[in-house]
Amino acid sequence: METYIKELEKPELRSPVLIEGLPGMGMVGRITTRFLIKELGARRFAELYSPHFPYYVLVNKKGSVRLLRVEFSFWKNASGDSDLIFLTGDSQAQTIEGQYDVANKILEFAAKLGVNAIVTIGGYRQEADETPKVMAISTSHALLEKALQGNAVASPAGNPIVGTAGLLLGLAKFKKIDALCLLGETRGYLQDPVAAKGVLQVLQKMLKLQIDLKGLDVQIEKSKEIVTQMREIEERREKYAQKMRKTEEERITYIS
Amino acid sequence: METYIKELEKPELRSPVLIEGLPGMGMVGRITTRFLIKELGARRFAELYSPHFPYYVLVNKKGSVRLLRVEFSFWKNASGDSDLIFLTGDSQAQTIEGQYDVANKILEFAAKLGVNAIVTIGGYRQEADETPKVMAISTSHALLEKALQGNAVASPAGNPIVGTAGLLLGLAKFKKIDALCLLGETRGYLQDPVAAKGVLQVLQKMLKLQIDLKGLDVQIEKSKEIVTQMREIEERREKYAQKMRKTEEERITYIS
Amino acid sequence: METYIKELEKPELRSPVLIEGLPGMGMVGRITTRFLIKELGARRFAELYSPHFPYYVLVNKKGSVRLLRVEFSFWKNASGDSDLIFLTGDSQAQTIEGQYDVANKILEFAAKLGVNAIVTIGGYRQEADETPKVMAISTSHALLEKALQGNAVASPAGNPIVGTAGLLLGLAKFKKIDALCLLGETRGYLQDPVAAKGVLQVLQKMLKLQIDLKGLDVQIEKSKEIVTQMREIEERREKYAQKMRKTEEERITYIS
Amino acid sequence: METYIKELEKPELRSPVLIEGLPGMGMVGRITTRFLIKELGARRFAELYSPHFPYYVLVNKKGSVRLLRVEFSFWKNASGDSDLIFLTGDSQAQTIEGQYDVANKILEFAAKLGVNAIVTIGGYRQEADETPKVMAISTSHALLEKALQGNAVASPAGNPIVGTAGLLLGLAKFKKIDALCLLGETRGYLQDPVAAKGVLQVLQKMLKLQIDLKGLDVQIEKSKEIVTQMREIEERREKYAQKMRKTEEERITYIS
Repeated sequence: METYIKELEKPELRSPVLIEGLPGMGMVGRITTRFLIKELGARRFAELYSPHFPYYVLVNKKGSVRLLRVEFSFWKNASGDSDLIFLTGDSQAQTIEGQYDVANKILEFAAKLGVNAIVTIGGYRQEADETPKVMAISTSHALLEKALQGNAVASPAGNPIVGTAGLLLGLAKFKKIDALCLLGETRGYLQDPVAAKGVLQVLQKMLKLQIDLKGLDVQIEKSKEIVTQMREIEERREKYAQKMRKTEEERITYIS
Repeated sequence: METYIKELEKPELRSPVLIEGLPGMGMVGRITTRFLIKELGARRFAELYSPHFPYYVLVNKKGSVRLLRVEFSFWKNASGDSDLIFLTGDSQAQTIEGQYDVANKILEFAAKLGVNAIVTIGGYRQEADETPKVMAISTSHALLEKALQGNAVASPAGNPIVGTAGLLLGLAKFKKIDALCLLGETRGYLQDPVAAKGVLQVLQKMLKLQIDLKGLDVQIEKSKEIVTQMREIEERREKYAQKMRKTEEERITYIS
Repeated sequence: METYIKELEKPELRSPVLIEGLPGMGMVGRITTRFLIKELGARRFAELYSPHFPYYVLVNKKGSVRLLRVEFSFWKNASGDSDLIFLTGDSQAQTIEGQYDVANKILEFAAKLGVNAIVTIGGYRQEADETPKVMAISTSHALLEKALQGNAVASPAGNPIVGTAGLLLGLAKFKKIDALCLLGETRGYLQDPVAAKGVLQVLQKMLKLQIDLKGLDVQIEKSKEIVTQMREIEERREKYAQKMRKTEEERITYIS
Repeated sequence: METYIKELEKPELRSPVLIEGLPGMGMVGRITTRFLIKELGARRFAELYSPHFPYYVLVNKKGSVRLLRVEFSFWKNASGDSDLIFLTGDSQAQTIEGQYDVANKILEFAAKLGVNAIVTIGGYRQEADETPKVMAISTSHALLEKALQGNAVASPAGNPIVGTAGLLLGLAKFKKIDALCLLGETRGYLQDPVAAKGVLQVLQKMLKLQIDLKGLDVQIEKSKEIVTQMREIEERREKYAQKMRKTEEERITYIS
């Protein structure tokens, strides 16, 4: 079995920009991309399946299942020059060779679609301030400039960009496609919509998108509640563990 | 070396249903499938070998050995429309890519045999009641309905179905074969014939099979004894370990 | 890069028997095979190289190096019907797929050489008596009988035979070659020439070889010394570790 | 995706010697090779990319990125018979099969370039004296002699040479290219320019290179400072950890 792309539809796209956001640190890429798909009403037109994804299926709400996959959606941008393609999904490849294989297949497909720029999105672990920074790295000086004008900051040298977001940047050169990576600062919690909001603000300026980010604030509130709850559970668990240790020690003393 | 299927015989089957039960949690799938093979007198007609199975052989009762393998058996269903194919074996594939490869090879073979529905069987870890539940997930609404009428319950969303049982469901769509997964609730002990019995009761109703489940009760008794014995061994080991720790502590004290 | 066999010479062999002994538990197979090669003066005629072997080279006595490999040697048996081929080497394959690949390549080569029986040799962990047992498993009843007449004992069912020794047995059937496995009981120390001697005695009778096993007794003495030394080192290390722990505890007490 | 070599330029080289120094123990090979490239002004002419390298990209000083890669540079040796090719890079392959694959691709390319000798460089862990030794291993007696005349010492038998430095030696024989390995003694710190200097002195004599090693002394000073700093940090961390343990113990005592 090989990694393969199933095309549901063959849309005609004007010099499209591909925006990638797969699961990763703080889920920043995935939240950002899924928000844009929903807000703009982008339509799924292709699916990528791979033997390098984890070997399980997930039950969905209708009691059915599907393989883990990565999805391509498109949005016709009436007011701009570039249509948008969004790439998000359930998982990244699980092995080294799989990571290279999947990134390469994505790029071959992007080249076939005539994509002329790629934006990959991820998270970057750091104890962020109230408003987390967005770091930009690009294979093209022009693209980097655009991101900086959108309030991103340049990344210091030496940072690694792990996974598909990084490999797409590295491999894009071989297909002569410019690529930009935006990394939102995140504490790395399971879901970090605050970091995603930061990235969305940069994208909004860069691509002149007219979207309302308010929808994200509901997610942000929810995620704050979850963090609070998790801290409480953690504290209770710690107290309980201490109590257990004490009881255990006493028990041993009685036996001895 | 590639995964390959050795056909021992080419039976003619009427719109067959494939029932898969490979080793997995609580051995629910394997016990169920092996019980049906024995009870119905199904005949082995093909064997699947794979370099993704563990690299050892097992000595059998006659002092001989064979490679780990997965076996296909068939049963001519005189009183129904669908003949049955059973799939069980020694092992699942040991790597991610191997899992996809083996599941894909099984499906290609199923398609060649004209299989029109697949039922995969597995276990689902949960502290079960006296009568463990059976959860059903399906790619087809009609098939799910049938399972629910057979007293299975619908699975909540978000559950992962790991391994061959899951991948066959996910990949079946590409071959246009409907698929159903039945997961028996199990505490996950090495062998859980109680959970298997639950699954068998659902299958019996769904497929209108006339089989006597009494044979399983012997296995259930035996497995209860084993669980009791294992608990006793565990308790004795724990006591011994405590004693050792104490002795060790005293010894160190004497030396110091 | 693929697993491949480099032929140094193309000997004509009469219905040869292949005897395999790669590194494994107690090095039983390797010691046995190397002893026979040396004692009979067998000549190397082929080498197997594989990307599944560990990725290092070893410096040899002349300050040179070579890749890890597996070697085929032959011995013309003037007084019997079957010439012998010996297979031993530096390593087994390091991955699951590699194990199947290497075993398969060995068998293809054996079939090409007209091999009509394979004997694989390994170790079997057990606290052995003074004279360790040799267990026999075979794909052929006749071959098993011969081994039992040579004082081997039949293996109980359920034992796994791990690695090349096992896979060769399992895969031999597909090439229609009979195969036998002899497992010497060993405590599993790094080198167990006592277990190897047991296997050699069985082989001697089975194949009517006229060899002097005295040469092995030197190895046995040496290995006993090593075991004694290792125990002493272990005891001294243990005492030292206790002393260190005590000192450490005192130091912490002084600081606090 | 396959390992592949991108040629930027096709230099004509006179019976070139290939000097390999990839990241490894003490970074001895990499420091040595990079120093020679800079000092001699060697020019990059080919790049090797591989799906066996780690799946991340690194941000460089200009805010751009590139895939991890291995680079070939050449230097026209006006005063000698052999031009030099240098091979260094970001990483070694991450899997067993990948190691063999990358080493094999390098050798195929070397053969195409007409390389007539290969020198691989690495580190060898040992508590070194003020002036660390350099050990030499070679597939050719003549090449080994040259290294010993350059003050290298012969390696004792049994040493393993791990990774690309070792596999190139082992595989070179199949392309009929002589190969030498130089291992600098190192304590294995992240960067060990002292060990590299030792290797450079051997190479200088062997290849009659007129280079000034003073540039390396700056690196050596810097690395000594780093080692001193790391020790201080380590000591402070240890003291802090002890304090924490004490505080923790007291806290538990108060609660209990």
